Amino acid sequence: MNQLFSDRILNSKKSFIREILKITNNKDIISFAGGLPNPISFPTAALQDAMNTVTSKNGSHVFQYATTEGYLPLREYIAKRYQTKHGLTINADDILITSGSQQGLDLIGKVFLNKDDHVLIEKPGYLGAIQALSLYEPHFHQVDLFEDGIDLNQFKTLLHQHNIKLFYSVPNFQNPTGITYSKANREALGGMLNDTQTVLIEDDPYGELRFIGEDVPYIQSFSSNPSILLGSFSKIVTPGMRIGWICTTRPEIMDKLIIAKQASDLHTNYFSQRVIYQYLIDNNLEEHISHIKKLYKEQREAMLLSIAEYFPENIKITKPEGGMFLWATLPDSMSSLKLFELASTLKVAFVPGEPFYVGEIPQNTLRLNYTNSDPKTIDEGIKRLGQAIKTLLAQA
Amino acid sequence: MNQLFSDRILNSKKSFIREILKITNNKDIISFAGGLPNPISFPTAALQDAMNTVTSKNGSHVFQYATTEGYLPLREYIAKRYQTKHGLTINADDILITSGSQQGLDLIGKVFLNKDDHVLIEKPGYLGAIQALSLYEPHFHQVDLFEDGIDLNQFKTLLHQHNIKLFYSVPNFQNPTGITYSKANREALGGMLNDTQTVLIEDDPYGELRFIGEDVPYIQSFSSNPSILLGSFSKIVTPGMRIGWICTTRPEIMDKLIIAKQASDLHTNYFSQRVIYQYLIDNNLEEHISHIKKLYKEQREAMLLSIAEYFPENIKITKPEGGMFLWATLPDSMSSLKLFELASTLKVAFVPGEPFYVGEIPQNTLRLNYTNSDPKTIDEGIKRLGQAIKTLLAQA
Repeated sequence: MNQLFSDRILNSKKSFIREILKITNNKDIISFAGGLPNPISFPTAALQDAMNTVTSKNGSHVFQYATTEGYLPLREYIAKRYQTKHGLTINADDILITSGSQQGLDLIGKVFLNKDDHVLIEKPGYLGAIQALSLYEPHFHQVDLFEDGIDLNQFKTLLHQHNIKLFYSVPNFQNPTGITYSKANREALGGMLNDTQTVLIEDDPYGELRFIGEDVPYIQSFSSNPSILLGSFSKIVTPGMRIGWICTTRPEIMDKLIIAKQASDLHTNYFSQRVIYQYLIDNNLEEHISHIKKLYKEQREAMLLSIAEYFPENIKITKPEGGMFLWATLPDSMSSLKLFELASTLKVAFVPGEPFYVGEIPQNTLRLNYTNSDPKTIDEGIKRLGQAIKTLLAQA
Repeated sequence: MNQLFSDRILNSKKSFIREILKITNNKDIISFAGGLPNPISFPTAALQDAMNTVTSKNGSHVFQYATTEGYLPLREYIAKRYQTKHGLTINADDILITSGSQQGLDLIGKVFLNKDDHVLIEKPGYLGAIQALSLYEPHFHQVDLFEDGIDLNQFKTLLHQHNIKLFYSVPNFQNPTGITYSKANREALGGMLNDTQTVLIEDDPYGELRFIGEDVPYIQSFSSNPSILLGSFSKIVTPGMRIGWICTTRPEIMDKLIIAKQASDLHTNYFSQRVIYQYLIDNNLEEHISHIKKLYKEQREAMLLSIAEYFPENIKITKPEGGMFLWATLPDSMSSLKLFELASTLKVAFVPGEPFYVGEIPQNTLRLNYTNSDPKTIDEGIKRLGQAIKTLLAQA
């Protein structure tokens, strides 16, 4: 009997979060489990105007096949934003439009990874990256995260021990922890990369959502290694249109990414690229982002206040300066999976830490999302979760 | 020095058609090279109405993240169409919405192919399938196409000689040849598959565009092997929104495809799924398809008439009953690449046959698209091409 499926898919686990989100689809449940932007932040009316403008002005042309690289004016807009916001010398040729930045991860896997290559990610690390890159059958290694970035000693050791092909990082308001690497941390790790041939991947879906403190330069500013930035309109305009991008200033890498993109889906939804571009030029994006940041900042503060009120003191919580998530560490003896079960009976949900690890899995961590509930709901949900934690602690 | 790129991408050729299309972007050139639907066939006003309805009725919800499988009512619509048009027992659970059917090919590669597995395709075969599946590093084999389908003797031999994992076919109005498999051919090959463990892939982007003759049942009706249908709205509504689907009635295969889809781009553009669905329920699709078929039938007839007038008699031409392409076979001694160069100087373009082959490459074939030019332009282009052929023949 032949094997029907490929090794890569047989070794892929069913998504844990997918299963959890099925449970939390129940409307009775207060869910901190998802990673959804708040729909009240979507510029619905402005997007509708943009569609009508695009269709009326251009007619059928916007419904035709288009180029693999993406709509040139949109790529120019993105390049220019990197210049003005970050002082980076980026041109439209350095930008490839992707079907969400999740697809960027798939293309990176396609272009760089042979089976058994070594990939380094954060511990805990972004689940979507683990899923996407897993299909290219690498060996994963994880480097610990502290409040100010990665564990540099461990990083240096791992880089050299395993001849790391890719280092994947989410340096701003990381998923799942909310942690941001400090400038010193970025500088040190960038320097360490220079002694290697490791490709640096910086995934930055949340970078625009900083509501406390100052922006920090990308890690690539401190390293001369081949590097890639991933970006997305999902958290600042709309996630449902799946418009993201890959940015690299190395033409030889961009060439390969374009070949992989064409093989994967020819090109990203052209109409939606046109609509997003029209939205961007007809509206004030900075104002819109300010509005989202104000909203999320209030929700983050509501969650931290409620946690201070309802959680026992021995629960450690990260205090993100932006983004969408908090990360909680329970006492060593507690299981977040058991807490999840108990919390479900109290109609509140979160994501146990398990899917964010490869190899050895701490049992006592969990992720809380604050962007998709209003402050009152956050208070009620955290109250219930605090009750569940206290019940479980009392049982121990 | 480490190798920067993966083996799979280093072994992928730059797309030949991509390069050709760059030349033909010049507006002076009459191009039969692309595979574009005629934009005058796009239901632009109705799509604009659909967008406004979807946005006004549902608000921000349509801009949120959505499920990996796709919008349920759209999947139900597609399943029902298979039932009513083909008598197939297909349910919404058998449908996965993809980012164009090109992505279906990528997901099939992900789910089924280990390196060095054997894949059988038609000779000549669809370039996009060769590109997508190549990234999973299989060995390709090709089976000859006759006017009524594949060479059955060769098919049987190849199936058993190479323990074929996937057989990929475009049984209706094939790309690049325009050939349709007869019912007898489908029945015979379906029977041959039953003695193997080969997975049958039927890619059917053009099936709705039959303007001569009667529909023929899918090959899967004649085989009990695991099978997959690929479909798309690209040729009947709009290609630019990249909405296609995979259909399989085997839940174990669908499970794996969903895992691969989620890893690849989370889900297909949700807003566009909603718009296409709204368009489908608010309009008469049959009427719209009739309109497209009438248009393409006229264009096909114009091309065949002009060929009869301007081409020498020793050029063989397929006579498709639907779809978008004709296939020409020049005398053995003639090179379609040389013809391409000469034709370019006369400002007419086509695709030389080369990229549709793996392994041994006949030099004397070419593809002509008739869907994206009006009859007058077709006549002028074929006149120029006939002149180029005659010039080349005189030189031989």
